[in-house]
Amino acid sequence: MLSKNQIKLITDLKKKKSRTKHNLFLAEGIKVVEELLDSKFNLYKLFYTTDYINKFSVDNMQLISNKELNHISGFSSPNQIIAIFEIPEIKDQINSGLTLVLDEINDPGNLGTIIRLCDWFGIDQIVCSKNTVDCYNPKVVQASMGSLSRVSMHYCDLSIFFKKESRPVFGALLNGTNVYKSPLPKQAVLVLGNEANGISDNVLKWVTNKITIPQFGETQNTESLNVAMATAILLSEFKR
Amino acid sequence: MLSKNQIKLITDLKKKKSRTKHNLFLAEGIKVVEELLDSKFNLYKLFYTTDYINKFSVDNMQLISNKELNHISGFSSPNQIIAIFEIPEIKDQINSGLTLVLDEINDPGNLGTIIRLCDWFGIDQIVCSKNTVDCYNPKVVQASMGSLSRVSMHYCDLSIFFKKESRPVFGALLNGTNVYKSPLPKQAVLVLGNEANGISDNVLKWVTNKITIPQFGETQNTESLNVAMATAILLSEFKR
Repeated sequence: MLSKNQIKLITDLKKKKSRTKHNLFLAEGIKVVEELLDSKFNLYKLFYTTDYINKFSVDNMQLISNKELNHISGFSSPNQIIAIFEIPEIKDQINSGLTLVLDEINDPGNLGTIIRLCDWFGIDQIVCSKNTVDCYNPKVVQASMGSLSRVSMHYCDLSIFFKKESRPVFGALLNGTNVYKSPLPKQAVLVLGNEANGISDNVLKWVTNKITIPQFGETQNTESLNVAMATAILLSEFKR
Repeated sequence: MLSKNQIKLITDLKKKKSRTKHNLFLAEGIKVVEELLDSKFNLYKLFYTTDYINKFSVDNMQLISNKELNHISGFSSPNQIIAIFEIPEIKDQINSGLTLVLDEINDPGNLGTIIRLCDWFGIDQIVCSKNTVDCYNPKVVQASMGSLSRVSMHYCDLSIFFKKESRPVFGALLNGTNVYKSPLPKQAVLVLGNEANGISDNVLKWVTNKITIPQFGETQNTESLNVAMATAILLSEFKR
């Protein structure tokens, strides 16, 4: 049975402030939790229902009822387990290879998808502006499908990051050079901007190479590609 | 004020059966509705609140209260307008250029994103298996962001489609040829399969060229790319 304190902790961890305070985050559902258990992340507590067939013998497991799971879950259809993990220590930034920089990505689903894409393409770090959505937000954890354990996340003042950078900085914009015709070096920084407003002026001044995914349709519509789609295509171009 | 019959119609149109019966579908929010109004789609009825600043002078407009909008909307934060459009007549299939075939895509968000990608890359038709989610599902309409008006959608028995096909059929699989090293012709069919199970056996037998987006990370994780991400990368490869 869940204690009042446990329920309070789980509820609190849905908020960023409490995640920072406790240095803990939530993960839900078999797939994501098992990927995180199988990673370098330290488990703080695992709650499971009798439906769960345990593959991992871990300490800190606690049986709860389906009713309790429904109560604490953020899902409309909760999936057998919910876990609390420790937020890992931040690794040192590596200034080599291809680094992805995110400037105020707001949507948790987009950030989760981008983390998953980086995992696929072997990009092992993402540098985010401080106003980018928190990567330990439960919706980000969910959308990243365990890739969060393999991609290290850095939140910082991007101006300070760029001041130390010597690699060329590619920015995804609507008025840049055709990406299919641009030479894309192995040592580079790629910047993607906010869903509605693109790259902010403060970050734009650090961009050395503006690139664009050209639109092929005959009717040039006003809509741009979703930022996660643009990331997929650009990472593919850098890595192909 | 909304009549009982209007409320019933709007509620009914959230279900596929009723959309087929009435030959109507719902669209919500300023961006999507205005893109559809600006297209070839015929408006049946537009409901708007006093907040809405009308750019279009159309017949069949009806003022409703915010409370009424909240009641009929499928959104948690309804956005000023909700419209009913006629489902357009199905255009003839074109068997030239690049055609995208979807084999049992279940997630409305994925289908909407894929429609938007096709619009961007100038693919003007998508052929879907009969068990693919309905493109007039309100969540698909929402995620496609108006691209639905520019990409024609065909639902059919895929065996019948493939029997008439002479173009090479490329299938996205986990064990195919590296797509970055495959010649990709302008005249082709590209098949993407179900989110969990990939391309079904019935469709796989028509695939002439198996292709794969290679994974670049050092740790080969079990997770595959989301189907919308894979579509973004593959369409980019065919069109670049």
